[in-house]
Amino acid sequence: MSAVIIDGKAFAAGLRGRVADAVPAFVAATGRAPGLSVVLVGDDPASHVYVRNKGIATTGAGMVSVEHRLPADVSEAELLALVAALNADNAVDGILVQMPCPKHISEARVIAAVDPAKDVDGFHPVNAGRLASGLPGLVPCTPSGCLMLLQDALGDLSGKEALVIGRSNIVGKPMAALLVAASATVTAAHSRTRDLAAHVARADIVVAAVGVPELVRGDWLKPGACVIDVGMNRIALPDGKTKLVGDVNFAEALETAGWVTPVPGGVGPMTIACLLRNTLLAAHARTGLAAPAL
Amino acid sequence: MSAVIIDGKAFAAGLRGRVADAVPAFVAATGRAPGLSVVLVGDDPASHVYVRNKGIATTGAGMVSVEHRLPADVSEAELLALVAALNADNAVDGILVQMPCPKHISEARVIAAVDPAKDVDGFHPVNAGRLASGLPGLVPCTPSGCLMLLQDALGDLSGKEALVIGRSNIVGKPMAALLVAASATVTAAHSRTRDLAAHVARADIVVAAVGVPELVRGDWLKPGACVIDVGMNRIALPDGKTKLVGDVNFAEALETAGWVTPVPGGVGPMTIACLLRNTLLAAHARTGLAAPAL
Repeated sequence: MSAVIIDGKAFAAGLRGRVADAVPAFVAATGRAPGLSVVLVGDDPASHVYVRNKGIATTGAGMVSVEHRLPADVSEAELLALVAALNADNAVDGILVQMPCPKHISEARVIAAVDPAKDVDGFHPVNAGRLASGLPGLVPCTPSGCLMLLQDALGDLSGKEALVIGRSNIVGKPMAALLVAASATVTAAHSRTRDLAAHVARADIVVAAVGVPELVRGDWLKPGACVIDVGMNRIALPDGKTKLVGDVNFAEALETAGWVTPVPGGVGPMTIACLLRNTLLAAHARTGLAAPAL
Repeated sequence: MSAVIIDGKAFAAGLRGRVADAVPAFVAATGRAPGLSVVLVGDDPASHVYVRNKGIATTGAGMVSVEHRLPADVSEAELLALVAALNADNAVDGILVQMPCPKHISEARVIAAVDPAKDVDGFHPVNAGRLASGLPGLVPCTPSGCLMLLQDALGDLSGKEALVIGRSNIVGKPMAALLVAASATVTAAHSRTRDLAAHVARADIVVAAVGVPELVRGDWLKPGACVIDVGMNRIALPDGKTKLVGDVNFAEALETAGWVTPVPGGVGPMTIACLLRNTLLAAHARTGLAAPAL
């Protein structure tokens, strides 16, 4: 068997296009474009790349992108004051504080300071609770994108056996909540799980989000399974170069799985596309407009 | 093998005693006893019994119990106005609106109206989100009581295989979140799950909260498993009488399990004891006092 390679880049481009198509009607109704403000603290090179890419995608969809760059030694109080100002600014529909923050800043306090209605990352406890309670809210971008790819590949997920590896607040836990809401039978596995291979072997759906390079081996998989690889691990090669790999051994998975996402080009592009989607949805909800179909 | 029958009644009495023991120090520090206000709408006989039992247990622990009874045709606005008044009343530490409410009232709006700091049922989306995010908050009483019984029987739950049957906001979903936080590997099963017996067969821990009389059979269980039965189903007997049974066939489970809760006398008494615990914890948190060890 040779798995279908899920083209996350193409799917994300389609979603970004649908977001862009919906922007003019919002502008016509409100007199302004949806606005996303991104706050970046410090000099982490990877964060700078992410923020730049988010900005390009945001303006590419016809929305307003504003970047606030703060020095690494900014006080927590100054950062919280900026968040409060963005909460109060009606032109701002989405607020994203790029993580990680420097050690002297409490990420939990920063997350809790963002207006839940503008929390396009979906990390605020109010949005986590709405997701857990089956209420409408802003859903974290990465698991939201994974769910779209799964539903595109498999259709209805009801009754499917799903395994989520990893229990972070950003991916694993909201992913499990989304899959339960979609009526899959969901197992949450993590670093303390005893026989991970046995869990993988019975799963129709595997979402790996644990940050361990090529942890999941191809011969663990149930033949025909749909494998979504959230991992982005940079490993050193013998020749001194480096390579980006996922949490799943991709070459092996191709032999057994029915569908598998590549790294890069799978889940990654979906995260930014879902950020644009959340910004558009937040803009509509804040202004009392019905959400467009995306 | 004959399972240990978990004595929830005795464990709950111990917890109620520890709550009662902690009340005098709160009174000494604040000049008042912790207060629980229960709101009962309509004439549901079962709800009246529950509310009466809650009141007796509350005063039995030395706390203040106030019951507000509203007619079945009360408007949602009047109910929400009462909740707002209780939110504003500093002598009220816990607010519980007994469910179910009459059909013309939105339970979701009522739940969202309670101050999360006084939400001793733990149903508010903010508390659901705190639980999901690993933050401190008020946890729903029934799953909280189940976790105590599990930890009393098994000690550390890390790495155990846990199966939660049922995905309600009141029991199943918070139970799964608590077990993941306790580092169990957790499977969430429900009405759409395909092969429930196979999931039960590999579980060290089974929490059944689905409301189907004796759904789980003894020969499904892994020998030595710890079985927590949240079900409370009244069934008709051939002689015309009725009987209360759980979601697990108790007589069969005794033969295979290592531990099993009876119905009644298992989880039920823990729910009220955890309500008292939540009221005491809410009282301490609201007044800035350190939580007592319970």
